Amino acid sequence: MPHLDEPEEEGEELTIARPRRSLLYIPGSSQKMLSKGIASGADTICLDIEDGVAASAKGLARKQIKAWLDTEMTKAPENMEICVRINAVSAGDVYNEDIEWLDTLDVVPHSIALPKMDSVHDFNTFLPILTKLEKKHKKNIELIGMIESPLAVINLPSILQESKSADNNHHHLSALIFGGDDYSAASGCIRTETNHELDFPRAMVQMHASAHGIGVLDIVCKEFKDPSRFKKESLISAQQGYIGRQCIHPSQIQHANDIYQPSNELFEWSSGVLAEFDTQTKAGVGAFTYHDAMIDMPTIKRAENILIRAKACGMVLKGDINGNGDGKQ
Amino acid sequence: MPHLDEPEEEGEELTIARPRRSLLYIPGSSQKMLSKGIASGADTICLDIEDGVAASAKGLARKQIKAWLDTEMTKAPENMEICVRINAVSAGDVYNEDIEWLDTLDVVPHSIALPKMDSVHDFNTFLPILTKLEKKHKKNIELIGMIESPLAVINLPSILQESKSADNNHHHLSALIFGGDDYSAASGCIRTETNHELDFPRAMVQMHASAHGIGVLDIVCKEFKDPSRFKKESLISAQQGYIGRQCIHPSQIQHANDIYQPSNELFEWSSGVLAEFDTQTKAGVGAFTYHDAMIDMPTIKRAENILIRAKACGMVLKGDINGNGDGKQ
Amino acid sequence: MPHLDEPEEEGEELTIARPRRSLLYIPGSSQKMLSKGIASGADTICLDIEDGVAASAKGLARKQIKAWLDTEMTKAPENMEICVRINAVSAGDVYNEDIEWLDTLDVVPHSIALPKMDSVHDFNTFLPILTKLEKKHKKNIELIGMIESPLAVINLPSILQESKSADNNHHHLSALIFGGDDYSAASGCIRTETNHELDFPRAMVQMHASAHGIGVLDIVCKEFKDPSRFKKESLISAQQGYIGRQCIHPSQIQHANDIYQPSNELFEWSSGVLAEFDTQTKAGVGAFTYHDAMIDMPTIKRAENILIRAKACGMVLKGDINGNGDGKQ
Repeated sequence: MPHLDEPEEEGEELTIARPRRSLLYIPGSSQKMLSKGIASGADTICLDIEDGVAASAKGLARKQIKAWLDTEMTKAPENMEICVRINAVSAGDVYNEDIEWLDTLDVVPHSIALPKMDSVHDFNTFLPILTKLEKKHKKNIELIGMIESPLAVINLPSILQESKSADNNHHHLSALIFGGDDYSAASGCIRTETNHELDFPRAMVQMHASAHGIGVLDIVCKEFKDPSRFKKESLISAQQGYIGRQCIHPSQIQHANDIYQPSNELFEWSSGVLAEFDTQTKAGVGAFTYHDAMIDMPTIKRAENILIRAKACGMVLKGDINGNGDGKQ
Repeated sequence: MPHLDEPEEEGEELTIARPRRSLLYIPGSSQKMLSKGIASGADTICLDIEDGVAASAKGLARKQIKAWLDTEMTKAPENMEICVRINAVSAGDVYNEDIEWLDTLDVVPHSIALPKMDSVHDFNTFLPILTKLEKKHKKNIELIGMIESPLAVINLPSILQESKSADNNHHHLSALIFGGDDYSAASGCIRTETNHELDFPRAMVQMHASAHGIGVLDIVCKEFKDPSRFKKESLISAQQGYIGRQCIHPSQIQHANDIYQPSNELFEWSSGVLAEFDTQTKAGVGAFTYHDAMIDMPTIKRAENILIRAKACGMVLKGDINGNGDGKQ
Repeated sequence: MPHLDEPEEEGEELTIARPRRSLLYIPGSSQKMLSKGIASGADTICLDIEDGVAASAKGLARKQIKAWLDTEMTKAPENMEICVRINAVSAGDVYNEDIEWLDTLDVVPHSIALPKMDSVHDFNTFLPILTKLEKKHKKNIELIGMIESPLAVINLPSILQESKSADNNHHHLSALIFGGDDYSAASGCIRTETNHELDFPRAMVQMHASAHGIGVLDIVCKEFKDPSRFKKESLISAQQGYIGRQCIHPSQIQHANDIYQPSNELFEWSSGVLAEFDTQTKAGVGAFTYHDAMIDMPTIKRAENILIRAKACGMVLKGDINGNGDGKQ
């Protein structure tokens, strides 16, 4: 699998080639949940050895995930990303056991999620392990870093810089995940229904990541029996530039897939704006009016970004199954 | 024109001598709009060669702006700032053509707006051009830097430091503009009616600028047929310490001028607080109560700031045409 | 008095051993207010020589505070912290007079609040004074730093680093206070009822402090006749991880004490979660469901933090006067 999210030059426009609208955690210790992963419909399934697995069941989880990779990986839909979450560098023995286990794999996942990536040290400790694994299997393995504490947020600019400079401006980090509950535990804030207590770190992580062209996945919603809350949170999150979110229940996946892609209205508006821009440019006009609003270059760029994302998610304009919408319907 | 916004020592109180409540963009390619600029009532009119002008019309825009400066500049009201927005350093050829064009001017504007000032490099590339122009014309030309991407926000602290240190603690940057739509395009966020997706970068830019005594102008409201939205946004923006905002339609100017100056209530309250402070200080009292609220030194400083801003905007206390309000009415 | 808030290793979980839910300012110039301090019920009383005291009354304040410390300090409840707020390093003469006065004390307070701690320079200027005082009296004297301007917020990361590295990773700063009104005056923002204009700096200060295991006290509410506003603000503040807040009127103290400790519901939920965790862990289960929500390791850590805070505030589970709650009631 190629690096679909090839990072861009610092400061360039954000383009997201691979959707990661939904990432479903599957505890490696549960054979039943593992068996349902491929049919889940998630953009990414994340086979977990970390916080979803009890200390006493981590050995079992590793054994079952290895077996799963051997037999199920080839059965996954072409666009589905298979990820494994190991334990944190700071976790000591269980991390070391994970590293030894990675070396025993015959089939490697598309990506590895590194939790509690609090510092450049954590990143640099794991990077050679990953690089070695890539060489051994002659495959790219993407790294998804988890930012889950005030310290991690504060160190994120340095981590991103390190990720970029470690290998000739090629970013090793393919995506980030913001972990709201670990952040809360470490910062002393109290989780609420509006998540206002996480506004600041969520925004800071998104800003720094987007400056490097790296997408971020948002917090989990643990109240899996409350889909309206999940949807409400996801909409806000998508507006704030998050590319998707973590799911802890299969029922959350479709909502995430729907919300983290451009709405049909936005998709059609973008097509319309770009068509009108074409016309106006030929006439030598700069800024122009469309649907009572002024359209200038920044808006044109936004419209282009929306089209790229919509197409990556497989969207087509209504009445235009070839995807060549004129945006005028 | 002198540097009215003479920057202060780092960390000192913010005083804003020149109001920049409203900045109206006027595409240089539109002779009709250029001809209406002086009568617009804006604190600043910004003659645009950048995003409001089509690529094919940039030459025309430069020609018309030069002619406008030659004949109209002297007709502008004394307090009106005439600004020219050139293209970004990163724009390549069009930027180079702007620089050559600046060298041909017989009459220079009060200020130049530099868009997409993403890095210290961008700032340092343009600074010598500006300095040379100032020397040639023996006039100060103020620099208004535009912060319009996650990268620019991240680099702003370094840019401000550079602006200050480049010339013996005299800030070359006279004001900043936050560009919300370019920011959105670069960060992947989606514009909403509440602008919540821009809360973080807007606040970060305001904080860093105010630490250097530099004012910031806020995002445009493109829905120019919706004055209530413009007014609502402006009120929040003024509360958050923005000194004014960009306007893309003449109908927005008066609202900006009204909202970005202290309200009459605040003006009167400030006068009242300061009068009472005078009385209490003579009696040796520190903190005291005024209108059921505790007044201490920070409140006194805020009241003084409000008076300075109110007077800069030409406000006078009711029943006090000399501006010597006793705050007791 | 020992350093109860012994700072932890960077990045470790936040544990707060000493509650500072309420800090009441008492102007040193008011003998009447001084005499009521001990009975106030505040976790901390802060005898003020700074902004609550008129310039002409600072000598009187020092004299009265010294006398108060001599006779009243030993009468204070065991858990009450006695703090003195001196003037800012940048205040010049009055600061120097404070330093001289500190040297004349026979009885020293538990802590000193340093206002307008804008830079590493301010911190490093006062630190040797404090250390000398500690040696002379053979007592720890805690330092509470006040962050009250954009510059101070920007410099906070460096100040925290300096505080940590100045003495073998032992933090000299024991707590921080965010000063909203001085911040407003310096930043040019306008105070509103929702405090939205302070969201950014408040969150930034809390994040940086919590990364170092240091608690922060929140802004004052000057409208002391409006308890509902005080309570509403305090609830939001506690959710955002603030450990307490400044009070300017005795009527605010009980509200702060109530709100900045875990609610009974949260206390009981935490006990219940931890009891269930015990059961599930023995059964080898990792993540599990409790009250319809998924519980994993971050939640367990939050529950543990809540129990620590609740016990520090003297809370006991209903029907469990020994505090050995099973969380099942």
